[in-house]
Amino acid sequence: METITIIGAGAMGSALTTPLVENGHEVRLWGTELDGHIIDELRAGNNHPKHKYPILKETKLYKVDELAEAMKDSKYVIMAITSDALGMVFERVVPFLTEESIVASVSKGYDYNKSGEIVILPEILKERLPENLSDVPVVAIGGPCKANEVLYRSPTCVVYACEDMEAAKTFKKLIQTEVYNVKVDDDVMGTEISVAMKNAYAVALGMAEGYKGINGLTHNNTKSALFAIAIEEMDKLSTAMGGMTRSVYGLPGAGDLEVTGEAGRNRILGEVLGEGMKASIAIQKMKDDDITVEGYPAIRFGYELVKRLEKEGKLTLKEMPLLDMLNQILYEDALCYEGIRKVLNDFCNN
Amino acid sequence: METITIIGAGAMGSALTTPLVENGHEVRLWGTELDGHIIDELRAGNNHPKHKYPILKETKLYKVDELAEAMKDSKYVIMAITSDALGMVFERVVPFLTEESIVASVSKGYDYNKSGEIVILPEILKERLPENLSDVPVVAIGGPCKANEVLYRSPTCVVYACEDMEAAKTFKKLIQTEVYNVKVDDDVMGTEISVAMKNAYAVALGMAEGYKGINGLTHNNTKSALFAIAIEEMDKLSTAMGGMTRSVYGLPGAGDLEVTGEAGRNRILGEVLGEGMKASIAIQKMKDDDITVEGYPAIRFGYELVKRLEKEGKLTLKEMPLLDMLNQILYEDALCYEGIRKVLNDFCNN
Repeated sequence: METITIIGAGAMGSALTTPLVENGHEVRLWGTELDGHIIDELRAGNNHPKHKYPILKETKLYKVDELAEAMKDSKYVIMAITSDALGMVFERVVPFLTEESIVASVSKGYDYNKSGEIVILPEILKERLPENLSDVPVVAIGGPCKANEVLYRSPTCVVYACEDMEAAKTFKKLIQTEVYNVKVDDDVMGTEISVAMKNAYAVALGMAEGYKGINGLTHNNTKSALFAIAIEEMDKLSTAMGGMTRSVYGLPGAGDLEVTGEAGRNRILGEVLGEGMKASIAIQKMKDDDITVEGYPAIRFGYELVKRLEKEGKLTLKEMPLLDMLNQILYEDALCYEGIRKVLNDFCNN
Repeated sequence: METITIIGAGAMGSALTTPLVENGHEVRLWGTELDGHIIDELRAGNNHPKHKYPILKETKLYKVDELAEAMKDSKYVIMAITSDALGMVFERVVPFLTEESIVASVSKGYDYNKSGEIVILPEILKERLPENLSDVPVVAIGGPCKANEVLYRSPTCVVYACEDMEAAKTFKKLIQTEVYNVKVDDDVMGTEISVAMKNAYAVALGMAEGYKGINGLTHNNTKSALFAIAIEEMDKLSTAMGGMTRSVYGLPGAGDLEVTGEAGRNRILGEVLGEGMKASIAIQKMKDDDITVEGYPAIRFGYELVKRLEKEGKLTLKEMPLLDMLNQILYEDALCYEGIRKVLNDFCNN
């Protein structure tokens, strides 16, 4: 039996308690200052407020001021924090790490590192490790994984990627059950680019769903063509960043894009735009309602990343017409239907 | 203006009249003996009985005994016949072909050639060309293309693949519109394997949808994991047959699987099995109701093809666990939920 501490009691963090508890480990779920009410509800034996589903009662629960207890003698840490707060929260965790620690992360997206460069999230964690802990492995988690389905044990396959394959295998051994299947890989870059960009491209798939709102007619062909274009662009971006094609075409890319394009907030944002709402209005509504849509910043980060790669001679924006158009639609209020139609034209004619 | 004859007045054949008529061509739609009522309805100005949508009135309509008129001075032929009847119907078309002809085909699946070997459908056409016409190009059409959406002009991208790229480009010029976009490629094998196998694997995606019927809980993660596994297996099969990875990961493979997994009869068959019906009963019901599900024979053909490739040392059944399991479920009444769960386990552990 091992001890695992999950940092962040949101939907995904809470869900991952299930396979770990089932494997007989001591599982500690720590909530940030934003998760106080979640911990209260769970302590009261109620459903998790996010996915309205209970978690296993063996899970030990910790509030924001109990981080030291949550981390005591705990070698394994899973970061389950939104991308924009990941670095900040990790800084509080670092003092409790040792050379023996292994850190995994389910956060999705990009952030700016301390030098102001856009990087994948494992880099955000690594740059916060002090020199004596610089060998602590960071395992990137990707693949189709809706949190509620992990809680109620629908079978899935996910990827745990780490340059240190032994660290990935160690986590696999801790967490794999007969329904939560873990594939290990050493392609952190391809996994992370896929994981971040599938949220961006799911917005495009949502647009195709939304077009029905314009003329009452389905656009499944449009959605599928966008799916194929999205995969191709994800592969170009991953390759330019040093990632492997297998991750883009596998669970973290194509697999996860399939599930993300079927439901969720990224798709809903796209749907609203597809129906004809201007992006500036849709985004303002989102902000007013305090809704986070990961695909929205992912589009911008992806776009800026391509601009950087363009300067480095590794990729051009012209090779990424869908991402370019998503950026125009989301950040410059470009016309959605006409823009996407043009992307399909160009895809076949260039 | 050119003359194009479409052989087969089913859903897809009828749909392809739209972009051709819009481009100003003389478009002739010929119905087989099974399509008599369709031609009658269309001649009466009614909706097409299959997709309940009208076709453009400029389309010229021909009944089964009017093939000579339909083919008169027509250089371009599109075969839109179900795979099991393709060779037989093509034999009737061949006498009207000339050395100038170009044949395209939207049929999906496999069949046995005259030597009893499983082949992709362009081979079924080619072996029926007499020696003096052996250079007539056969263009394979793949990619996301629900027929009704072509009729009402939802934007899409499809692939026209031919070893003779000029022939593919000629067809692209004839048929491409601002919404029906054509990408040309020379990878006939990869395109055809994708086109055939996406029907087979769509049955698996349907199963994941059906599992909700067992316990009331969604299995979107399962579906997405199956999606990634399906793409990987399609690529292995295509590669072993000499096809290119780009087709599997592009429009004919990943793109078309996405749309096929969302709706249609392949998915519905899978859904019924996922809900717990034994395959032998589901298949009998299908036959009683005279419903053709392309994925059902595609699973068997695919399975037998892998067995042949195994003998040739090019691929093993062990490398294709999902196809192997689909064959067991569909043809040997193996348990569906348990079988698919095992495929997911094996995918991560082998």
